Amino acid sequence: MRVQSFLHQSDSRYCYAISDTGVKVRLGVDKAEHLSKVYCVYGEDYRFGKDHREIEMKVAIEDAYYRYYEVILEAPRPSFLYVFRVYDEKGEDYYFSETGLSKGYIHDLSFISAFQIDAENEADYVKVPPSWEGRVFYNIFPERFAHGSVPLPKTHVNAPWDTKKLNGRPYVFLGGDLYGIKEKLPYLKSLGVGAIYLNPICLSPSNHKYDIVDYFQVDPRFGGNEAFRELASEAHAIGMKVILDMVFNHTSSDHPFFKDCLEKGKESPYYDWYFIYGDKPSLWKRNYRTFAAVNHMPKLNTSNPKVIDYLILVGKHWVKEGADGFRLDVSQGVSHAFWIRFKIALKEIKPDILLLGENWLNAESYLGPDQLDGVMDYPFLGIMSGYALRQKSALDTVYALNASLVKYKQGNNAMMLRLVSSHDIQRFFTLCKKDKGAYMCCYAILYFFYGFPMVYYGDEILMEGGNDPDCRRGMDWKEGNFKTIEFQTFQKLGQIRQEDALKSGDIHIEEKEGMVVISRKKDRKTFTLFTNLSGKSKQIPSPNILFGYRLVAGQVAEGGFAVVMETD
Amino acid sequence: MRVQSFLHQSDSRYCYAISDTGVKVRLGVDKAEHLSKVYCVYGEDYRFGKDHREIEMKVAIEDAYYRYYEVILEAPRPSFLYVFRVYDEKGEDYYFSETGLSKGYIHDLSFISAFQIDAENEADYVKVPPSWEGRVFYNIFPERFAHGSVPLPKTHVNAPWDTKKLNGRPYVFLGGDLYGIKEKLPYLKSLGVGAIYLNPICLSPSNHKYDIVDYFQVDPRFGGNEAFRELASEAHAIGMKVILDMVFNHTSSDHPFFKDCLEKGKESPYYDWYFIYGDKPSLWKRNYRTFAAVNHMPKLNTSNPKVIDYLILVGKHWVKEGADGFRLDVSQGVSHAFWIRFKIALKEIKPDILLLGENWLNAESYLGPDQLDGVMDYPFLGIMSGYALRQKSALDTVYALNASLVKYKQGNNAMMLRLVSSHDIQRFFTLCKKDKGAYMCCYAILYFFYGFPMVYYGDEILMEGGNDPDCRRGMDWKEGNFKTIEFQTFQKLGQIRQEDALKSGDIHIEEKEGMVVISRKKDRKTFTLFTNLSGKSKQIPSPNILFGYRLVAGQVAEGGFAVVMETD
Repeated sequence: MRVQSFLHQSDSRYCYAISDTGVKVRLGVDKAEHLSKVYCVYGEDYRFGKDHREIEMKVAIEDAYYRYYEVILEAPRPSFLYVFRVYDEKGEDYYFSETGLSKGYIHDLSFISAFQIDAENEADYVKVPPSWEGRVFYNIFPERFAHGSVPLPKTHVNAPWDTKKLNGRPYVFLGGDLYGIKEKLPYLKSLGVGAIYLNPICLSPSNHKYDIVDYFQVDPRFGGNEAFRELASEAHAIGMKVILDMVFNHTSSDHPFFKDCLEKGKESPYYDWYFIYGDKPSLWKRNYRTFAAVNHMPKLNTSNPKVIDYLILVGKHWVKEGADGFRLDVSQGVSHAFWIRFKIALKEIKPDILLLGENWLNAESYLGPDQLDGVMDYPFLGIMSGYALRQKSALDTVYALNASLVKYKQGNNAMMLRLVSSHDIQRFFTLCKKDKGAYMCCYAILYFFYGFPMVYYGDEILMEGGNDPDCRRGMDWKEGNFKTIEFQTFQKLGQIRQEDALKSGDIHIEEKEGMVVISRKKDRKTFTLFTNLSGKSKQIPSPNILFGYRLVAGQVAEGGFAVVMETD
Repeated sequence: MRVQSFLHQSDSRYCYAISDTGVKVRLGVDKAEHLSKVYCVYGEDYRFGKDHREIEMKVAIEDAYYRYYEVILEAPRPSFLYVFRVYDEKGEDYYFSETGLSKGYIHDLSFISAFQIDAENEADYVKVPPSWEGRVFYNIFPERFAHGSVPLPKTHVNAPWDTKKLNGRPYVFLGGDLYGIKEKLPYLKSLGVGAIYLNPICLSPSNHKYDIVDYFQVDPRFGGNEAFRELASEAHAIGMKVILDMVFNHTSSDHPFFKDCLEKGKESPYYDWYFIYGDKPSLWKRNYRTFAAVNHMPKLNTSNPKVIDYLILVGKHWVKEGADGFRLDVSQGVSHAFWIRFKIALKEIKPDILLLGENWLNAESYLGPDQLDGVMDYPFLGIMSGYALRQKSALDTVYALNASLVKYKQGNNAMMLRLVSSHDIQRFFTLCKKDKGAYMCCYAILYFFYGFPMVYYGDEILMEGGNDPDCRRGMDWKEGNFKTIEFQTFQKLGQIRQEDALKSGDIHIEEKEGMVVISRKKDRKTFTLFTNLSGKSKQIPSPNILFGYRLVAGQVAEGGFAVVMETD
């Protein structure tokens, strides 16, 4: 047995509170080890040396390389020392502790060698605010979703709504606005949407508005602040939440603060709000830090307390105007120091505020009760594209999905924004090369997976679009789009997502006969999804089929799925 | 090659800022893998797909199971995507990325598969405040260090200063006070002490004062607030810092807040300041959470914003009275939410505040720019006791010390409070069974190691003492104690610790001929310690010996050490 075979870290995704009295303990074990039994040896911290119990751990999750043994430790005062006792195939036992692997363990020396978790403090426990539990998100690029019937000055509209070949210039306007979105709320409701996420709406010269000029004003092209207040209030009235896209990593170079720097250089009070090298910034030289290499998006210095205070005011303003949470642009570029202070300040005025970051890659260090709740899960898209394009088998896909379940604490996992399309990448239907079966199977997985499913506007009608800006075409409201089997299937997925089992039930993912099988269970009800990209028709091993896609008489054709419900 | 052989996590102790433009990247590789070359493939985040470089990584640290390859990535804008390219013995190359091990790597898909670090934000970079760099800490249990000559009411003194058999009752008073400490500051200065750490001094019925009754008053037995102000001001005048022990995990059951609960139960405004089960707390039933199982130490609810605000006031009060930092009792029991808010609030009034926790075990989740700076390193004591008692070889010891260097980020490592004795455990001289050689070798290692060395009062004169309370005897001021070779050696260690190389230089630890060899290097100067617990005399491989213990003519006897200085 080798110590390198074990993955564990105290007070981390391997050991954390899941209730006021319960702690989930997870031990990763290299599949090269063949263990006959695994126990967690634990006791109250101060008397572990004298009084400890053993509780068996079971394999809960398996990925390509590790088995993850789990157990929940319960105590009125959940503050534990613990070590692991593992048995090999021959029944020989070893202890795995903070100091490594050993034959035997000296409990009296646990104060320098045990693992420790003190889970007594509720503030440190990552919880999904009940008001958000299980909501389906719908992401709208406001310039491209719908024209409102309220007459806005349309002078700025400079391309037809159904323009297909959008060029890269961010000054092409089709005329979508917030009144348009408000009028489509009943449509979204019919799709099972529980929260809309709007790409930026603050004053900005561009159609995407990631280059903000005034953080306190909704762009008049979108209807101004009044339009947002109306939209939020109408959404709230039908039980829908609204999150806004906040761009704290950078401003527009036309923002008055940066313009002041351009003019006055070091004499500007805003000079240290940015990262400027030299006496004066120059758009031509780009002698300042930017978002990527974009001259007109100078990066804000979010270590500066003045910047922090200002952006907190911005956040509070939009909560007061009706935002229920935020999607936070380029969140890995903004300081942890900022996220911590922002979360503290915003929670004070809105205890169930939801903060979702735009980290594309591993976001563990950004998540937690005092930072972000979740992030947009682009690696999930990576898994789905491998499956959809048949580069990965069902088993590969199951292992990858399982690996993503152990990447973060369960609470944060439940608040990840899972997606396959967004305004920054080609649409998933295009990525799938218009393979409807693969597309619908992946969307079904998205709805059954842990976390918030996100539908990018138009994906429910299989809109196409290459990379940005082609993925930002005007929503195609043609009536026929809403009469397809695929659209109706999205509606059914939206409906079933309202079941408690899918909102907050346990998840179990496995491969069966070449299918990806995801079960969600709560109380006595289990809903199971079978997706079939195996190339052959498959029999579903249960008569209790609720609905499906390409499903005939208990058989799922290639590119189809089935949803089964069972009651204990 | 196996993916399980690699240890890495982005934005963690494996990848973090070490300057405004530099990022340390560390890759752990199982020693079972025999790699011929290791490279970090990196580029600016937004253009990594098109533009990336390879930089070779070298083995910087080795423990019993892993080799740690390191490299520093430098850029004016340190925001990177990166993956690792590793070559096996035959020269076959593989890539290790966020998605695992692969032959070849598709750089264009890096947005869903690379590692990422954005180190642009200074606020997130763990720095040792220059004012603290390299200080030697001296820990004083105030009741037991020195009588002051200022006449305090001595009515409470109820045992002679030289009492050897202290019993467990916390109401035995020998009469030490803060004036006594103040008078001994020149003594401490002569020992090379740069910071004194006082166990609690606030009003409390006990001699240890971990059960506080008034957080704003120094116990009059110790001289009251005036005595502390004088002590702090005198210490500051001679360039010494003072840290106070703050007990935020619990109060005394005699604290007015808990007494109010005892009296009024749920009607008390302080009821939710504690964890009380039922309508009213009862000392007899202990129906409330406590420190360990101690009825008279009810645990504070540090998730409660009112408690948080109150304890922040306490911290600010003591900073204003002269404290330069805090040692924080039972820090793993206090919420992360609290430490975050406390650090933010205290840094506002004292930017170089130092916060050292009492976590006994792995403290990674408690450390960082917005939480604790370091913790008391009890596992270090574990390593030293294994070495001192000859349970572990020099090589085992080197591997364990190296493993402790990769446990945290370098900045936090530099602020760990390293110790072998404290008021909570038997004195190290007693643990060593009075083996002076082993004792002095371990203390020499303590002074040469990374982090703040801490001397528990009296350890410099080899005081004995079993477990608490025997380790808290009155300091033995007998003149002869300060004329020994051992005491003089402590003075020399205190002196050499002032060298830049030991204050903030690089560290390299290896085994040579059965000796533990620690080199500290800065600029052109290298100081190297050789400790010999091999059982045989050893020749030191350098003529440039500065001093040592049991050292004759370039030979270090068993139980001795030598310090060598070399200049490039």
